[in-house]
Amino acid sequence: MNPQKKNLPIALTGDRPTGKLHLGHYVGSLAARLRLQEECKQFVMIADAQALTDHAHEPQLIRAHILEVALDYLAVGLDPGKTTLFIQSLVPALPELTQYFLNLVTWNRLKHNPTVKLEIQQKGYGEEVPAGFMVYPISQAADIVAFKADFVPVGDDQLPMIEQTVEVVRKFNRLYQKDVLVEPKAISSAQARLPGIDGKAKMSKSLQNAIFLSDEPDVVRQKVQRMYTDPNHLRVEDPGKVEGNPVFTYLDAFGKDKEKIAELKAHYGRGGLGDVAIKKYLMEELLEFLEPIRKARQEFAKDPGGVMQILRKGTEVAIEAAACTLREVREAMGTNYF
Amino acid sequence: MNPQKKNLPIALTGDRPTGKLHLGHYVGSLAARLRLQEECKQFVMIADAQALTDHAHEPQLIRAHILEVALDYLAVGLDPGKTTLFIQSLVPALPELTQYFLNLVTWNRLKHNPTVKLEIQQKGYGEEVPAGFMVYPISQAADIVAFKADFVPVGDDQLPMIEQTVEVVRKFNRLYQKDVLVEPKAISSAQARLPGIDGKAKMSKSLQNAIFLSDEPDVVRQKVQRMYTDPNHLRVEDPGKVEGNPVFTYLDAFGKDKEKIAELKAHYGRGGLGDVAIKKYLMEELLEFLEPIRKARQEFAKDPGGVMQILRKGTEVAIEAAACTLREVREAMGTNYF
Repeated sequence: MNPQKKNLPIALTGDRPTGKLHLGHYVGSLAARLRLQEECKQFVMIADAQALTDHAHEPQLIRAHILEVALDYLAVGLDPGKTTLFIQSLVPALPELTQYFLNLVTWNRLKHNPTVKLEIQQKGYGEEVPAGFMVYPISQAADIVAFKADFVPVGDDQLPMIEQTVEVVRKFNRLYQKDVLVEPKAISSAQARLPGIDGKAKMSKSLQNAIFLSDEPDVVRQKVQRMYTDPNHLRVEDPGKVEGNPVFTYLDAFGKDKEKIAELKAHYGRGGLGDVAIKKYLMEELLEFLEPIRKARQEFAKDPGGVMQILRKGTEVAIEAAACTLREVREAMGTNYF
Repeated sequence: MNPQKKNLPIALTGDRPTGKLHLGHYVGSLAARLRLQEECKQFVMIADAQALTDHAHEPQLIRAHILEVALDYLAVGLDPGKTTLFIQSLVPALPELTQYFLNLVTWNRLKHNPTVKLEIQQKGYGEEVPAGFMVYPISQAADIVAFKADFVPVGDDQLPMIEQTVEVVRKFNRLYQKDVLVEPKAISSAQARLPGIDGKAKMSKSLQNAIFLSDEPDVVRQKVQRMYTDPNHLRVEDPGKVEGNPVFTYLDAFGKDKEKIAELKAHYGRGGLGDVAIKKYLMEELLEFLEPIRKARQEFAKDPGGVMQILRKGTEVAIEAAACTLREVREAMGTNYF
């Protein structure tokens, strides 16, 4: 960690290592992190322990994606000189803080976390939800609190997690009468969510509607070719719908020439502009955006040992930072016996 | 830890440090531990982290009783040369193991733990039970598993905890296809539960019906004097009830002269033996039993720093033993990245 960054605000985010990162991650959080690493002391966590809460049966998937996610981070420009990249499960203070924070939250409160409720529904868990999954908002509170994060860039669906964290912080500071823990603020991304290529609301590996940061150019072309557009736009001369058309959403996110995009939208809306043409333009723009990322990724991938070394060093920094908070927490509770 | 103890079976128990230990603890578990320290490699844990699950609002109570419980242990004869005495919250592998095991147990299963259900009822928590309290059976599984305990001496009310631990062990070993974790067996005490001096089923600090190991002789005498007996035994010449009469239960537990006790029981049953007489006899027997314990306790109490040093050394042994199991657990899951 750069010592000059000492008095900067602290930011924390992370990703579950269950798949490679895709354009949805870029828009939803990686872009924000690239800004934050210039303005904050930033921690970015590969959340393998959190991934285990609903992937306990396939830790090999998680193991395999530690390196992949790290490569994605480095490829987009997260700079280990500016951002501490680390592996969650290697920071022992995190489960210990979780343990203490679980005592400050009721069972009832956990049951009514809207994000978790929705996820349980989506995963079809019902009552058979793993207990670890049920309590993961408190682990997430521990992650945020351990690094004294001031800012957490999140999508709107994650706002209840920040609320839960703030509750824990207030309860702890009030109960133990010390101002030890820091209340985090959510930073909501302007365009937090990129639709999938199938037009569904969320790009996601599990929905198989994602363009990955590491996709080869041919794969990107194929994915753009089969992208969902306006289903009623059958002939070139027909007027097409721009709103909810992912081709234009992607152009808004990744196209450089905003004026040209505005023209294309108008033309498409009037009729006379075919899907093939707008997809071809999007392809070019996306390939140009992805090219330096893919190249950088290939370079880093030549030295996986070096990448793991970056994670190891970042993890050492994270271990020490979290241990420091844990010491303060124990001191506040008076359980620092020796 | 004595190196000669390497191949012996392993035993684990512990107490929540929320009060001094009393005669109920002696009968229910300390007596068994004195035997086990001769036959096993024994770990005895001061379960401060577990105590926090329902005492998060009074950590100072827990802090104060770390030393008290340690003094009780040493006074009854737990020998740091034979038994590893340690403080639970100082062993970081325990919350980490808990974190992994929570993923192997469903929310639904936790809700139906009979011991926890009863405790929630007794404490009047309802839905407002702290989440940490709800999940403490899994922390307890982590405690047992971390030390690869073969034996856990418990009262019958704690048997569901051992069942839960066995489930976790089996699930883990099956899921990760390694025979890493050890299935514990419960050792049920012959006379697991001593009634309170008020005749209630359980001696307990919170019911204020306990005789503490550290009680002064005068206090013991007073407590025995106001002991519940047979409420229908109004005149000396009346026949009295022996069964359910705590004076005789205590004599069975602590009296040396079994023949004399049998005679007293018969006499009391026939009538003609007063409560004052049997209480006087119990007083003598209890004071004789407690005298060496109280004296030893006073000796140890002269050097609290020395006692804390014993705990510190034991905790170091415990940290290493649990870290070793954690390494195997991570290896089995394949999350040993470096």
